[in-house]
Amino acid sequence: MELVTGGAGFIGSHLVDALVAQGKRVRVLDNFSSGREEFLAHHGEQVEVVRADLLDLDATKAAMKGVETVHHMAANPDIRLGTEVTDTDLRQGTVATYNVLEAMRSAGVSRISFSSSSAIYGEADVMPTPETYGPIKPISLYGASKLASEGLISAWCGTFGAKSWIHRFANIVGPRGTHGVIFDFIHKLKADPTRLEVLGDGLQEKSYMSAEDCVRAMVHLVDETDEAVNLYNLGTGDTCSVRRIAEIVVEESAIEGVAIEYTGGSRGWAGDVPRTSLDVEYLFSTGFEPTMQSEAAIRHTTRALIDEIGL
Amino acid sequence: MELVTGGAGFIGSHLVDALVAQGKRVRVLDNFSSGREEFLAHHGEQVEVVRADLLDLDATKAAMKGVETVHHMAANPDIRLGTEVTDTDLRQGTVATYNVLEAMRSAGVSRISFSSSSAIYGEADVMPTPETYGPIKPISLYGASKLASEGLISAWCGTFGAKSWIHRFANIVGPRGTHGVIFDFIHKLKADPTRLEVLGDGLQEKSYMSAEDCVRAMVHLVDETDEAVNLYNLGTGDTCSVRRIAEIVVEESAIEGVAIEYTGGSRGWAGDVPRTSLDVEYLFSTGFEPTMQSEAAIRHTTRALIDEIGL
Repeated sequence: MELVTGGAGFIGSHLVDALVAQGKRVRVLDNFSSGREEFLAHHGEQVEVVRADLLDLDATKAAMKGVETVHHMAANPDIRLGTEVTDTDLRQGTVATYNVLEAMRSAGVSRISFSSSSAIYGEADVMPTPETYGPIKPISLYGASKLASEGLISAWCGTFGAKSWIHRFANIVGPRGTHGVIFDFIHKLKADPTRLEVLGDGLQEKSYMSAEDCVRAMVHLVDETDEAVNLYNLGTGDTCSVRRIAEIVVEESAIEGVAIEYTGGSRGWAGDVPRTSLDVEYLFSTGFEPTMQSEAAIRHTTRALIDEIGL
Repeated sequence: MELVTGGAGFIGSHLVDALVAQGKRVRVLDNFSSGREEFLAHHGEQVEVVRADLLDLDATKAAMKGVETVHHMAANPDIRLGTEVTDTDLRQGTVATYNVLEAMRSAGVSRISFSSSSAIYGEADVMPTPETYGPIKPISLYGASKLASEGLISAWCGTFGAKSWIHRFANIVGPRGTHGVIFDFIHKLKADPTRLEVLGDGLQEKSYMSAEDCVRAMVHLVDETDEAVNLYNLGTGDTCSVRRIAEIVVEESAIEGVAIEYTGGSRGWAGDVPRTSLDVEYLFSTGFEPTMQSEAAIRHTTRALIDEIGL
C-alpha cells in the first residue's frame, strides 16, 4: 500500500494516477483544504480516501497501517500566504512533516518520498543551481518550511534508519492546477477580457515542469535510486519568463486586443524569487527525460486550465 | 538594549559577559530549564532577567521592548534527548525560533544573531567542511532543528527585511558547561574513580572551541560583517579525539590508576556524528583568531569543570 498525503491536491492527484498505473494500491490522506474530490473521482473504489489533517497525529498514525512508502505531498500550496499569516508554512509544512515522520516511526514505516522545492535556494548566486549548492538561504517562509522538512527527513534517516527520496521541484504546472501564475492569469482574463495585469515587470524567469513529467520523475527515482537520502532537483533544464507566459495565455485564450500591463519591480511579491534555474544533470544521469520543456509545459497547462476554468 | 535568549545558559551567559564588557545594556530571556541564576549573579542589577519560555509568544513579544539586536542562544542543549522525545528539538528549536522572529517582526526589531551548529552538516563527505557545502543532510533531530532555524531566519531577512548573523558552532566547551563529553566524564569519575566508560570506540574526532573564543567570534562578526545574512562556521581549525579527551580528563583529575573503557562502535549514540571538522578560513578572513586550539580548549574546560563540579 502506498500512502499519498495531499493526494487529492494538484500534484498529489497526478502522483496517485501514476501509482495506480503502476498497479499499486493507493491510500490518500487529505484535509481537502485545497484538494478536490473530483481530482480522484475517476479512480472510484480503487483508491482509498482518508479525510484527515496531518496536524492530527493520531489520525496520521492510523493512516500508516500496511503502508510501504509514504509520498508526502501535502503542504500549503500558496507561497504568498506565508507573508500574511506567518505560521502557515511552519504548521502545514514543518510540523506536518514532523507528524508524518513520527507516525511512520511508531507504525514501523521506513520509506518516504517528499516534494521539496527550488524555493529553498532563495536567490542563489549559481545558476543553473545544482543540488550541491550552499549555503542555502531561502527568502520565502514556504522555502524555509521545505528546507526544515528536508532536514527532519534526513535526521529521521540518520537516527531511525528510514530511507528517503527528496525531490526539489521546479515550478510545477499542469491540469488541475489550483494556484500559480497561469491559474491567476486565466481568472484575471475571465473577470476582465480587455486587460491582463502582471505582478512585477514580467522579467521573472523560472524553470517549469509539467505535473505529468514531475510525478513520472518521482516514481522513476524511487524505483531507480537507493541511497539512505536520495536528493534530486526535478525540472526541465530550461526556463520561461512571466512575460512569455502572459503572451501564451493571451494567445490560447483566443481573445483579441488584450492589453498586458505590468505593475513593475523585479519581484511579483515579497518573498518571490525573480529568477530560478535548476541544474538537472543529476536527474538526467539516472536515465530520466522530460517529455515537455518549460514553454511546452506552459502551453499544455494553459489549454487544460482554460478548459477546466472556462473562458 | 541587547536581548540574549538562553542568556542564563552555558554559552549564553558567556555572551552576556562579552556584551556587558562592550558596555552594552543586556536583557536575558530564559526559562531556566538548563540555565542557572548563578551564571549571571556576578552582574547584579546590570543585567535584566526575564524568566519566560520562548514557546510563550506574548512573553517573547513583551521582551522585545527597546531591543536593538536579538542574540538567540536558547535551545535544547542535549542532542541525545532528541532521539527519545522526538518533538524536543522541533519545539525548543524550530518553533521557539519562529516565535523569536515573529515577536521581532511585531515589535519592529530587525537584527538577529543565531547560534547554529556544525550538527547541520551530518556526515559531510568534504572535510574540513566549508559553509558552501551541500546538500546538507543532518543526521540528528538537533541538527535538523538548527537547519530549520537557519531557514526561518533567512526567510525573515528575505521577506521582512531583517538582518542576521548565523554562526555554525563547532563543539563549544568551557566553564559553566552543563552537558557534553567533558562534563559527563568528570561526573563518571566522581561516581567511580576506578574506571572511565567512554561511549563508542573513542576515535570520534571533532572540532572544539572555547566558549570564550566562541562569543568573542560572535561579537566580532556582528560588528564587522554587514550582509543581509552573514553565515560563518565558528571553530579553531583543528580537531581532538574523544580518546584524547578521556586522557586529558584523567590527567587533570590527578586520580591514579583509572581504567579507560570503550563500549565500542564508531558512534557514541544514534545521531552522533563520528567525525566533524569545520573549515574556518572564512571566519579567519575577517581578522578573527581563536586564543586556544581544540586540545587547549579541552584542558582549560576540564580544569574549570573539575573546579565547578568537585572531584
